[in-house]
Amino acid sequence: MAAYMIQAPTINEIRDARVRIRDIAHITPVLTSDTLDRLSGASLFFKCENLQKGGAFKFRGATNTVAQLSDEDAARGVATHSSGNHAQALAIAARERGIPAFIVMPKSAPAVKRAAVLGYGAEVIPCESTQVAREAMLNKVVARTGATFIHPYDDPRVVAGQGTAALELMDQAPELDLIITPIGGGGLISGTTIAVHATQPNTEVVAGEPFGADEAYRSLKSGQRLPSIEPKTIADGLLTGIGAIGFHVLTSHGIRIVRVTDEQIVDAMRLVWERMKLIIEPSAAVPLAAALGAEMEIQGKRVGIIFSGGNVDLGRLPF
Amino acid sequence: MAAYMIQAPTINEIRDARVRIRDIAHITPVLTSDTLDRLSGASLFFKCENLQKGGAFKFRGATNTVAQLSDEDAARGVATHSSGNHAQALAIAARERGIPAFIVMPKSAPAVKRAAVLGYGAEVIPCESTQVAREAMLNKVVARTGATFIHPYDDPRVVAGQGTAALELMDQAPELDLIITPIGGGGLISGTTIAVHATQPNTEVVAGEPFGADEAYRSLKSGQRLPSIEPKTIADGLLTGIGAIGFHVLTSHGIRIVRVTDEQIVDAMRLVWERMKLIIEPSAAVPLAAALGAEMEIQGKRVGIIFSGGNVDLGRLPF
Repeated sequence: MAAYMIQAPTINEIRDARVRIRDIAHITPVLTSDTLDRLSGASLFFKCENLQKGGAFKFRGATNTVAQLSDEDAARGVATHSSGNHAQALAIAARERGIPAFIVMPKSAPAVKRAAVLGYGAEVIPCESTQVAREAMLNKVVARTGATFIHPYDDPRVVAGQGTAALELMDQAPELDLIITPIGGGGLISGTTIAVHATQPNTEVVAGEPFGADEAYRSLKSGQRLPSIEPKTIADGLLTGIGAIGFHVLTSHGIRIVRVTDEQIVDAMRLVWERMKLIIEPSAAVPLAAALGAEMEIQGKRVGIIFSGGNVDLGRLPF
Repeated sequence: MAAYMIQAPTINEIRDARVRIRDIAHITPVLTSDTLDRLSGASLFFKCENLQKGGAFKFRGATNTVAQLSDEDAARGVATHSSGNHAQALAIAARERGIPAFIVMPKSAPAVKRAAVLGYGAEVIPCESTQVAREAMLNKVVARTGATFIHPYDDPRVVAGQGTAALELMDQAPELDLIITPIGGGGLISGTTIAVHATQPNTEVVAGEPFGADEAYRSLKSGQRLPSIEPKTIADGLLTGIGAIGFHVLTSHGIRIVRVTDEQIVDAMRLVWERMKLIIEPSAAVPLAAALGAEMEIQGKRVGIIFSGGNVDLGRLPF
């Protein structure tokens, strides 16, 4: 549906995005924890995108994209299919611009997520849970309304928006040796990689991925983009397969992916809740789980970690 | 046990405390929430002391006090009786100075709190749960070790430390019409009142108190300091009676106390967890519960709220 070539954004597009969203998105704080520093033997700097509007970094990309629509396109609204953080982000971004948002959401989505999106003023269109049903319903909605489909990650404007978190982080915590993000569709890791390598080429970028949804890891290993088939992990924000932009960026930058078990994810999540008093969702705990694992050797290093989101169902905690 | 007169600190003592603890305590962020602003009709600025070291504002007062001990006194260590946030705060403050801490703690205290204090390197001395048993054991420990007893609130150095949160808040969120804190022993509200009224006399200070532990409210009404008898509230940090300093400061400054039900507290706490992604303990939700209640009229105002702490047992949530 997109009329532009799908290609990765440039560093200048990320810098422009930062200016564009400055007065709309939160500049989220970077927090530290003596306890976690002791535990890891490193200096950890946590970029708290769980405190972003909509509870996740997704608001950055949604806002950067919605802001660039022509007045004419914007007036017809924006649309997507999602039961997750992109849905909330797009609903708020649309509200900020004063335009309609149409969110196609599986009937099986938790009532609390549906209520949140409705609360931001979006129209929710229910559909069956399969990918085919979701896309068919989205197409119908777009045909009916003329709304612009906003992809959750395979859009350079979205990726540029996600990259602004890393730009802020590098200002807030100078001279990081390493930055770790989770990887799902690849929007956050791609924006981060481009932002970091263009600004501080010596800072390493690493992606954390659940073993139960490790198609990005397998894609990089095999040299071809593999679909996500029956992923199974508590990190419900990372079930999607890696996108075209993500695959291209990770391949061309030689990004390393570190995999973690669900047990490591829950342990890391609990540590953050108990010791940092921050609510992060399982997906957001993946980079810390990777940092604390045996595979990474971070002792003595300055490590940036992006807490990607904090949208959890308080009635269904894993501990 | 104290060799000094119990009197309220001056604004200069609070300013000195701010300098004294600057490199030890966190300057906690002030966060905002569009959702809560809409809900309240006001502009709310949340001072996140739940993100302070030890998970509560108590670290400010403990640090300011420990830092002022002579080298000779400090070498013998510090002591207190507490199963709550003061225990953790004193344990960390002692560790930061490299001196022993002796914490008398009821055997009935949750294992997780005991483990936290032990983790900070303090010695935990178990005792029976009654106030008499706790004080008797504290006296024994002090006699044995020569440690200095640090009172959780009736000490001007402690109150001066607690007042530093309000000094920071006024810098971070200028021109507040109103600042609300919880009230237990009265250390936080006293330090806040002195800091605010000396700096911005037109900013009102209000205390939130649970109906189930409202002896401060009743003390102000009756003009005499009443004990806390069989308090019953989910806000387990506010069970203690108002101290001498607190009673004096609240009376002389004419501070208003707004009472809230446990249901209001749980609702406010849940709002913060769900919408702000911050873990706050029930006591910390009391000022927001007061702000959202019918008694206060905050529409259109700029309101500072101190989230006093975030130490909750994740295995025993009220929702």
